[in-house]
Amino acid sequence: MSQNHSDHTLPLNGVRVLDLTTMVSGPIATMLLAEQGADVIKIESPTGDYMRQVGTEHKGMTSSFLTCNRGKRSMCVDIKQPKGLELVLELAKNADVLVQNFRPGVIERMGLGEDAVRALKPDIIYMSISGFGKTGPQAHQRVYDPVIQALSGLADVQRDQLSGVPRMVRTIICDKTTALTAAHAITTALFHRERTGEGQTMDLAMLDTMVSFLWPETMGSLSFVGKEQDPAHSQKSPDLVFKTVDGYITAGANSNSEWEGMCNALNRQDLICDPRFKTAQARSKNISQRRQIMSDEIATWMSKEILERFDSAGVAYIVDNNIINVIDDETLGEVRVPRPPVQYSGELPRITTLAPFQGANNRELMLELGYKDSEINQYVQDQILHQRNAGN
Amino acid sequence: MSQNHSDHTLPLNGVRVLDLTTMVSGPIATMLLAEQGADVIKIESPTGDYMRQVGTEHKGMTSSFLTCNRGKRSMCVDIKQPKGLELVLELAKNADVLVQNFRPGVIERMGLGEDAVRALKPDIIYMSISGFGKTGPQAHQRVYDPVIQALSGLADVQRDQLSGVPRMVRTIICDKTTALTAAHAITTALFHRERTGEGQTMDLAMLDTMVSFLWPETMGSLSFVGKEQDPAHSQKSPDLVFKTVDGYITAGANSNSEWEGMCNALNRQDLICDPRFKTAQARSKNISQRRQIMSDEIATWMSKEILERFDSAGVAYIVDNNIINVIDDETLGEVRVPRPPVQYSGELPRITTLAPFQGANNRELMLELGYKDSEINQYVQDQILHQRNAGN
Repeated sequence: MSQNHSDHTLPLNGVRVLDLTTMVSGPIATMLLAEQGADVIKIESPTGDYMRQVGTEHKGMTSSFLTCNRGKRSMCVDIKQPKGLELVLELAKNADVLVQNFRPGVIERMGLGEDAVRALKPDIIYMSISGFGKTGPQAHQRVYDPVIQALSGLADVQRDQLSGVPRMVRTIICDKTTALTAAHAITTALFHRERTGEGQTMDLAMLDTMVSFLWPETMGSLSFVGKEQDPAHSQKSPDLVFKTVDGYITAGANSNSEWEGMCNALNRQDLICDPRFKTAQARSKNISQRRQIMSDEIATWMSKEILERFDSAGVAYIVDNNIINVIDDETLGEVRVPRPPVQYSGELPRITTLAPFQGANNRELMLELGYKDSEINQYVQDQILHQRNAGN
Repeated sequence: MSQNHSDHTLPLNGVRVLDLTTMVSGPIATMLLAEQGADVIKIESPTGDYMRQVGTEHKGMTSSFLTCNRGKRSMCVDIKQPKGLELVLELAKNADVLVQNFRPGVIERMGLGEDAVRALKPDIIYMSISGFGKTGPQAHQRVYDPVIQALSGLADVQRDQLSGVPRMVRTIICDKTTALTAAHAITTALFHRERTGEGQTMDLAMLDTMVSFLWPETMGSLSFVGKEQDPAHSQKSPDLVFKTVDGYITAGANSNSEWEGMCNALNRQDLICDPRFKTAQARSKNISQRRQIMSDEIATWMSKEILERFDSAGVAYIVDNNIINVIDDETLGEVRVPRPPVQYSGELPRITTLAPFQGANNRELMLELGYKDSEINQYVQDQILHQRNAGN
């Protein structure tokens, strides 16, 4: 498997990330850095990342691990042995960034806390991801995505409109939004270090991430103290999903010209100057009536007909735009991966790597650290270094 | 209102962003840069950003505009007049980044396309955000968040489990995920320019963003070509929302030790060694049975009792951790804002600014460009510069 850290065209080329994360939020954060060209070294314990055990399995690689760890190198090392810990500290010495998402206190007990690492590499960017931050009554708690969905208010926003039962968003939005936020913060810190020479210690809590993410339209009505409006109010309106004669479509109109276009498409020109809907504020105020009228009208059309009238988009697009690439891997065969969404002019970031098998890069990383083959063999024999190869 | 571009402690301090975006995806992207210290100059047309017209309104500021445009400066200028366009090009000359989210082709017609801007500022980072990218059959189309929810597959993932009716996620996840992705990409480009001196032209499509965002667990079962599994399968299981005697809770267990803890909390130690649930892979395979058993057990407890047993978190946290700040603004009074989720050691990024009124910074920006007061007055008289002050 070729590694994208040898690709000299990507913006984070030359940046080395020591990845001490497991599960989803941390691994996706560092994967985003790898996709931008960083050399991400994932440290795994002998039992391996839990994600190696879930999802569709193919020749010893699971889809869950693959989709959160593309483009990384793996070193599988027992850090409970002093010589194992020493290896990770040696890697930290050459790293620009360290990311970890253990529960607060754990990384210090492992001997890889900020103080220990910064003593060896004073300008490192040290990022800790957690559910609730370092302090507070819940800091010690195990956290999964649904807990944050519940506590951030998202499950309430998403609740069933008739029964009031809280509902989850069916993608692990809290983990993945935290990953994006972390990747962004790490990159700003890299920029800052480039200009000033200063490292940075950063903490990111999943709950903080989601409150901030949800705020703009979901909680924004709480902005003006003393003029609060119930955030649930704007969420009470039905989804922008409309039944047609033969299926479901989505459609919406915000500006005056869009509203006019929609009225024309529905042959309801009478609504254009209707005082209930004439201005953006009026449309916002009378949103339930407006949706009911739209809903009744759209229900009389075939999907294709009305979508053509709305000039809406077809699903053919995803193939058109090559967002899904197929990589022919020598071990795994053909594997689908989404390309990074940002397109650069001139040269595209090429995805050429999948995710490493556990400990796949032990030997090359040891050689980079200056160890000789005979020494490496001793580490393997002492069960400090571990490796699991592809299965069938 | 003090401006955070005078705050010298933030990582993007000294970076200037020319913000030609409206609505949500672009404005939040540049707001994230402003929160990290960038000086973001929002250019508004005389009619202003559409978001100034929606949401809760208070003294001429709407919650929708406020929550997408914190920390920016506003210049309101009629670029249909040649002297207005010239002003924006002068600002571009001093900008590190330009962000725009007009539909493909529009910015070129306005005279602010990449070629025009790069001629004046060769190393600018030029970011275009769109719904479907620059090319392809849908490139010309108006796009709102629900359209991308539908096309990316999210509305299908979220569909009603009984009726199969597609459902939307009730927060504009596509707009906001695109904003985070754009902010991250811009920052990597700033880092790259710092190291190499090279600018960058970047395009980001909302649909690409969401396919990439959803991929890890939602679409990941499509990874291995020839071994595909229906992505809907893993989404068919019920939400992790459980009814208790007096309400609803969420709870989950992944690893062996967590599963054991949950069985103990529920007084169902018999399940720990049950072959259906003993390993992660078995639990993943028998997920429906497992949820049914958990659901039945949890239904016999009071929420507080069982949550204490699960050692779960209380909502008190959000106040504890100061994620919501209250700013006392001289015009708007007390206003709630979420603080940026990333916490830096030593010094916190302080939020001291809200969002600008339309054209609030016209004069100071003109003075920075070197114009004299008398000249500025002429621009105002010629209706090239516009301004709307606070209302009551």
